[in-house]
Amino acid sequence: MAQKKQAKQVIEDLGKDIVSQIKAMKNPSIIVPIRALSNINYNEKSKTLELGDKTGNRMFFNVAHTKRFLQTVEVASASLNLINENKNASLRDVFYQVKRTIPGTHTNIVDDQTESDAAIEDLELITGQSREELHINANKNGSVAGNVVIEDRGDTIDWSKLGSGGWSIPSNVELITFKKVTAKYILYMEKAAVWERLHEDKFWDKQNCIIISSQGQTTRGIRRLLQRLYEEFNLPIYVLTDLDSWGHYIYSVIKFGSINLAHISGKMAIPSVRYLGIHTKDIEKYGLEKHLIKFKETDIARLKQISEYDWFKNNKAWQQEFAALKKLGAKAEIQALSSRGISFISEKYLPEKIKNKDFLE
Amino acid sequence: MAQKKQAKQVIEDLGKDIVSQIKAMKNPSIIVPIRALSNINYNEKSKTLELGDKTGNRMFFNVAHTKRFLQTVEVASASLNLINENKNASLRDVFYQVKRTIPGTHTNIVDDQTESDAAIEDLELITGQSREELHINANKNGSVAGNVVIEDRGDTIDWSKLGSGGWSIPSNVELITFKKVTAKYILYMEKAAVWERLHEDKFWDKQNCIIISSQGQTTRGIRRLLQRLYEEFNLPIYVLTDLDSWGHYIYSVIKFGSINLAHISGKMAIPSVRYLGIHTKDIEKYGLEKHLIKFKETDIARLKQISEYDWFKNNKAWQQEFAALKKLGAKAEIQALSSRGISFISEKYLPEKIKNKDFLE
Repeated sequence: MAQKKQAKQVIEDLGKDIVSQIKAMKNPSIIVPIRALSNINYNEKSKTLELGDKTGNRMFFNVAHTKRFLQTVEVASASLNLINENKNASLRDVFYQVKRTIPGTHTNIVDDQTESDAAIEDLELITGQSREELHINANKNGSVAGNVVIEDRGDTIDWSKLGSGGWSIPSNVELITFKKVTAKYILYMEKAAVWERLHEDKFWDKQNCIIISSQGQTTRGIRRLLQRLYEEFNLPIYVLTDLDSWGHYIYSVIKFGSINLAHISGKMAIPSVRYLGIHTKDIEKYGLEKHLIKFKETDIARLKQISEYDWFKNNKAWQQEFAALKKLGAKAEIQALSSRGISFISEKYLPEKIKNKDFLE
Repeated sequence: MAQKKQAKQVIEDLGKDIVSQIKAMKNPSIIVPIRALSNINYNEKSKTLELGDKTGNRMFFNVAHTKRFLQTVEVASASLNLINENKNASLRDVFYQVKRTIPGTHTNIVDDQTESDAAIEDLELITGQSREELHINANKNGSVAGNVVIEDRGDTIDWSKLGSGGWSIPSNVELITFKKVTAKYILYMEKAAVWERLHEDKFWDKQNCIIISSQGQTTRGIRRLLQRLYEEFNLPIYVLTDLDSWGHYIYSVIKFGSINLAHISGKMAIPSVRYLGIHTKDIEKYGLEKHLIKFKETDIARLKQISEYDWFKNNKAWQQEFAALKKLGAKAEIQALSSRGISFISEKYLPEKIKNKDFLE
């Protein structure tokens, strides 16, 4: 509830400030931190991506600013309505809510969702509130199972008693209360099929852990869920992805924050995350040589790009891994482990990795 | 359990048959129904796509057949192992399980997942068992909420008591038992964000229905879930998609079966499904004119293609809708309704549609 009042308060203050500027016959303006790569720094100490302190002044009476100014005010108004009605909307919903023609003109406030999305990101920066706190959510995705009991919208939900499906992770996990967490760590994987394999093998039960998967991209709902479990219960988090640059980037986003969202990295990054696999040395160790997928040009380019990121540049272990991957010249999927037997992953690979603390970080 | 024995029995019979052919010094062969558009018919009576009766004889001693023969036997063996171990695998897992070099050669049994996928589809045809019954699953996707209690893997799960997330739908729903179904109908939508909107508005509670969403494609798990609820409880199913040819095809696949999977349409099609919206006439009725997205070339081509499908060709209502869409020359998204207010969809649009039986079928 404190959270709700805060976002409401900040938006109302923003509105009042603009009104008072108008009453004072000033050119209404909003100070907006600059959201560009040139203003993003990697903080060696906190190990997260951070926005620098460069700001811009967005003015109403400035042909280059007028539309962005208006868009910002419009999404602020849409967000305030959502907060007041105690409802949550998707980015697409907000686009349709602010998309209308300015009376007496042929100009739309927004023509494309990229414009309202950018305005929402600006609003996050201006207000210091995350999109979730502004009651605007991204898509939902992912499943979870494990020894955890939560409370959500008045329901008590036991993640260990949800059959083969598990709990479907919502886009917004801010209002969930954790009632009982007996699991000892979290295993996050990029593939739903791997999750189903581990779930069928009762991996989370045998290992007393939590298994979480998305399908492809890690949504903000999942990232916040991981982070809350880490911050509130100090649970170690292990990430399991394919051996390729996309897998490495999934790990990077969870651990350090994403480039696009550097302005809220403090809310989203989880510095203690560890990369469990697939590692290049696993290929020989677990006999996966026949299941490599040769690099294409894009794989080589992406590997170079990732290895040069500030947050990997001075990390010896990762630089060795990148070099080994370059030398290997090929990718490998998690599911290549199935060639060793359908439950090889849950009975041998993962328990061995976790027992031997065989991870990169 | 009966189901399990059946698949096991059929595969073992297939193996025994091949062995007896070998012992009789015959050229081992398997009869496989032909899976091509030329052998797919639309059954006007059952209103589903069906495979015709053309078959081919796949022979071991025939250079054009040898590899396919071997692949079929290999996936049959992988499936039998899964059934015996009582485990389920993904298509990708099975690919890795059968992917190996034939001893004494440089030839792999499969090089690419498309080969093992095709062999699995053949096996479905040969055995008359669905992929799920062969213990091979597609990806999991989607969420469900509503007044339903199920039993699954020993857990009792109440779909009305799962907070903001809902139950995560597994890839395989064959072994779920429905303990209590008080909901009166099912609303299936293509977008997870719309599902979250309706869930937050307690739509399923107020309307006593079940809400199900995927994100994009309707997985086989979702299709079988819809079908089981229809067949076992006679629940009407309404489909809600964007107004475009992709939305229409989502409806078409659920109702009539898909072209790729015509061989198991009987197991997957649900002839009673109704298309609730978005309809072309909704644009004017609900004031969505400003939120249309103009057609591109691909939209026009896809519309023509769909309108010519056998199963739409003689359907007057749908031909009118296709003509109206062509005339409109634009698409509209479900979320365009948000322009009328964030809960317009759950408070006005859907209740009105359902009350007035305003659907296409």
